[in-house]
Amino acid sequence: MEQLEQKIRQFATMAPGGIVRVDSFLNHQIDTAFVQLLAKEFARRFSGLGVNKIITVEASGIAVAALTGLEMGGIPAVFAKKAFSANLGSDAYYSTTIHSFTKGIDCDLIINKKYIGPQDKVIIIDDFLATGEAILGLMRILREAKAEVKGVGAVIEKTFQGGGDRLRERGILVESLARLAMENGNIAFVGNPK
Amino acid sequence: MEQLEQKIRQFATMAPGGIVRVDSFLNHQIDTAFVQLLAKEFARRFSGLGVNKIITVEASGIAVAALTGLEMGGIPAVFAKKAFSANLGSDAYYSTTIHSFTKGIDCDLIINKKYIGPQDKVIIIDDFLATGEAILGLMRILREAKAEVKGVGAVIEKTFQGGGDRLRERGILVESLARLAMENGNIAFVGNPK
Repeated sequence: MEQLEQKIRQFATMAPGGIVRVDSFLNHQIDTAFVQLLAKEFARRFSGLGVNKIITVEASGIAVAALTGLEMGGIPAVFAKKAFSANLGSDAYYSTTIHSFTKGIDCDLIINKKYIGPQDKVIIIDDFLATGEAILGLMRILREAKAEVKGVGAVIEKTFQGGGDRLRERGILVESLARLAMENGNIAFVGNPK
Repeated sequence: MEQLEQKIRQFATMAPGGIVRVDSFLNHQIDTAFVQLLAKEFARRFSGLGVNKIITVEASGIAVAALTGLEMGGIPAVFAKKAFSANLGSDAYYSTTIHSFTKGIDCDLIINKKYIGPQDKVIIIDDFLATGEAILGLMRILREAKAEVKGVGAVIEKTFQGGGDRLRERGILVESLARLAMENGNIAFVGNPK
């Protein structure tokens, strides 16, 4: 997506460990008008698949997931929580453990069983697709819930961390709005694989 | 807001400790079309104040804050983070410690100094206003950043936990879309104070 590549060229910064920082517009300060453009693009790419729900992970996936749900006709967006709180009550939950490479810790993803089930045709939306840990964790939950995964949408895919390929090898439709490669320590953009 | 009161009557459940669970439409599963209505109402109530930025806290404030930013002309929404991660890099941050009553722990609120400053006229938007801990924490950060707080918007104010009054006593404009009182263990709705 050309506008996103421009935005990344202009505002992204690199941090050690292959970290691409886009907190000026995507995952700390949210450029709401720009994220709406991203959501419209996801809605366009995932149209016609009968999607009735968006799934994401707190916190940085929420804005783009909610706006994508709105652009796809006002369908709900469910975000997996990373910790139990009293707000979750005594209901039954799906949970799975993933490793966060940016935080260096394991954490749980938790979704209330009420909000996902066999009637759901979902897309998973997130800000980043890196190793794919979070998305594969969500997919384990969705499989247990017998929901159908129609695709995965990432704002930014870091191709050098392999998660996109892991998903595509499983036959998952992956739509990344920008795909980054690392060439001599610099960011380069690559197209979506056919 | 009548539509919100109806939604709460229909879908909210009570948990011990005065907890009002609205995770079916607001803070776990997000009813995106409905949250857009809430955002339009905040935009209406805070119009004409010159607001150029929305501030909230991860995670459950993000959807309504982002949509409110969009409804107010596409202004940015900044969410305070609760933990440092490698994504935050080596920039300078504002931080303050608050107590989370629903989680029973202290946590930090963290905002990159780049994204808030004396040029900002902000409203703070959150899903709940209970004791006011999170919002008072954000206000400490905003004062340090010399940003101007034009108001506080809560989707649901729990009047029996006192946070709304603490803010109003300080002269803060507080707009709550639903104000809940507890009467004999049941939820009752009360109007906004004049």
